[in-house]
Amino acid sequence: MGGDFGPSVTVPAVIDFLISHPDAAVYLYGREDDIRKRLGSRGGSFYQQVSDRLQIVHCEQSISADAVPSKVLRGKSRRESSMWKALQALSVGEVQACVSAGETGNLMAMSIKNLGTLPGIARPAICSPLPTRKGRSYILDLGANVDCSVIQLHQFATMATIMLKTMAGWEPSERGAVDLVDKQSTANICVKTGLPSVALLNVGIEDRKGNRVVREVADLLRSDQNINYVGFIEADSLYSGDVDIVVCDGFVGNVVLKTTEGVARLLIDFIRSESSGYGLARLQGLLVRPLMKRVLGFLDPCHYNGASLLGLRGTVVKSHGAADQTGFARALDIAFGEARNDVCKRLNECLS
Amino acid sequence: MGGDFGPSVTVPAVIDFLISHPDAAVYLYGREDDIRKRLGSRGGSFYQQVSDRLQIVHCEQSISADAVPSKVLRGKSRRESSMWKALQALSVGEVQACVSAGETGNLMAMSIKNLGTLPGIARPAICSPLPTRKGRSYILDLGANVDCSVIQLHQFATMATIMLKTMAGWEPSERGAVDLVDKQSTANICVKTGLPSVALLNVGIEDRKGNRVVREVADLLRSDQNINYVGFIEADSLYSGDVDIVVCDGFVGNVVLKTTEGVARLLIDFIRSESSGYGLARLQGLLVRPLMKRVLGFLDPCHYNGASLLGLRGTVVKSHGAADQTGFARALDIAFGEARNDVCKRLNECLS
Repeated sequence: MGGDFGPSVTVPAVIDFLISHPDAAVYLYGREDDIRKRLGSRGGSFYQQVSDRLQIVHCEQSISADAVPSKVLRGKSRRESSMWKALQALSVGEVQACVSAGETGNLMAMSIKNLGTLPGIARPAICSPLPTRKGRSYILDLGANVDCSVIQLHQFATMATIMLKTMAGWEPSERGAVDLVDKQSTANICVKTGLPSVALLNVGIEDRKGNRVVREVADLLRSDQNINYVGFIEADSLYSGDVDIVVCDGFVGNVVLKTTEGVARLLIDFIRSESSGYGLARLQGLLVRPLMKRVLGFLDPCHYNGASLLGLRGTVVKSHGAADQTGFARALDIAFGEARNDVCKRLNECLS
Repeated sequence: MGGDFGPSVTVPAVIDFLISHPDAAVYLYGREDDIRKRLGSRGGSFYQQVSDRLQIVHCEQSISADAVPSKVLRGKSRRESSMWKALQALSVGEVQACVSAGETGNLMAMSIKNLGTLPGIARPAICSPLPTRKGRSYILDLGANVDCSVIQLHQFATMATIMLKTMAGWEPSERGAVDLVDKQSTANICVKTGLPSVALLNVGIEDRKGNRVVREVADLLRSDQNINYVGFIEADSLYSGDVDIVVCDGFVGNVVLKTTEGVARLLIDFIRSESSGYGLARLQGLLVRPLMKRVLGFLDPCHYNGASLLGLRGTVVKSHGAADQTGFARALDIAFGEARNDVCKRLNECLS
């Protein structure tokens, strides 16, 4: 029921997902009427192909995007909501992963309530892929933890490392990580091969830069044999893709993500307005359109959709509220991959 | 001597500045040989026009971009550096403002040492204009203060308000600030006309969002009659230009600025590579070029060049290291405007 478009996006996305994953089954939690209306939207024959792997669980309520988590959790009707019921099914093992495009704060609060957190994790981190020049990097936390302790940031690095190592198909890139290390003023960082590279987001790459927390985390990561720490990274290098994982607190991560969205939107609007009009500008506009489409596709947060809530006792993936059908299907892919690769169990073993 | 290009950019920029400001005079601090070589680069006749308002003060040393501030300040040769000598001249009133493209940390440390800070200011904030849909907004701090107290953030809002009010030519925009207020859950924010609007950068716009510091600053700003506080702003709205001033700590501000640079560079590279090649792509590329140039110009940090170090007992403006001639001339403009409008004196009166 979540996201900007509800079942009109999520239902056809689920049908696409089921077609491309013959070994998956999906339970849809929400208002049965609304869902049924959309089942044919992908074309009846598509639905027929997957109908035996698709079940609807009717829920009277859904959590609105502007609901306040603390109030929702005290509310009596929460147990009737689609979000709660889906997470409940995950907690008792009826399903192996849960995907929602609902509001992050509520999804987080309900996930913690229903699933609990892994040993030593106070609050899960939100980890999302980021488009870069050399494929994707992963960044966490993206807003769940606005103030982070040294221990938390260290845990984030550990969790993301385990997640990437565990995910089938992921290969250590090394990419430009060695360059990054060379640029650091400390000579005692060595790249550990076979492990994803981890950098800490900071306001400079020299040891003395940043606040106390960031510097202490750096010391901790450097001495951790299970983490391939390559040093500090500045925000202007995030999109070079030189590292696999970027760790920061949730306030900063949220600012990175939203600044990116803001700049991209500004640029796109600017190009649109500059290439509308008559004469040469109009011709430019027409010719630029396919190019702009590719640029938009590259930057579109939906194409990197699917943020993992790492640190829960269960696989929960948050979809961007504005995700389209392709985007939501990607979030389902990610959840499927995490469940299939037992990321949660591996995290539990390592954190214990 | 500072920045990526040194006198080859700063000297012609100064000549341009002097031509457009017949009531200004400039002292150039640096290696006389290097400077003299560039005096004719703008064309001999240009130099002749302004030569009586241009003086060279030879300095044996200059501070390199990778020098560590704490070491520089203890070093014996610091007093021979161009940066130190220029700031010294400012401190004794020989000049009314100082512009440098040198490294921020060193400029900050030397400025504090030479000029001191205004009453109650522990460390100045870096305040820079930001390109937006509706003209420029100003954002501070951009990296001087990585950890900020509630009191510091309140001071930032006060200083930027005074700066904008004092600057000739600035007019309160109100712009979309009223919209922003409407969106906030608190109804008790009222827009004060005649004052620049101030927003706090946060991870959400609802009262409950963010960390303790941000929420406490919000309470303080709301009750301050001298500040037109309009509420929280998220990073994706920074470029809408709905507010005049955005306040955040230096860590977050630095991340905003550098993320913007990173995304812009990524987009530009992507468009370049997509529009190179043959056939239609090549034609697109050629047609897109003038459009891209306008986009680049709009985003180019140099065109919004000139960050004020607010809170010093003197006007110091930092130019982006990569600024070109036009960019450096803008930094000179800003310094000239601040000195002319006695921004520093006004700040001193208000903070006292």
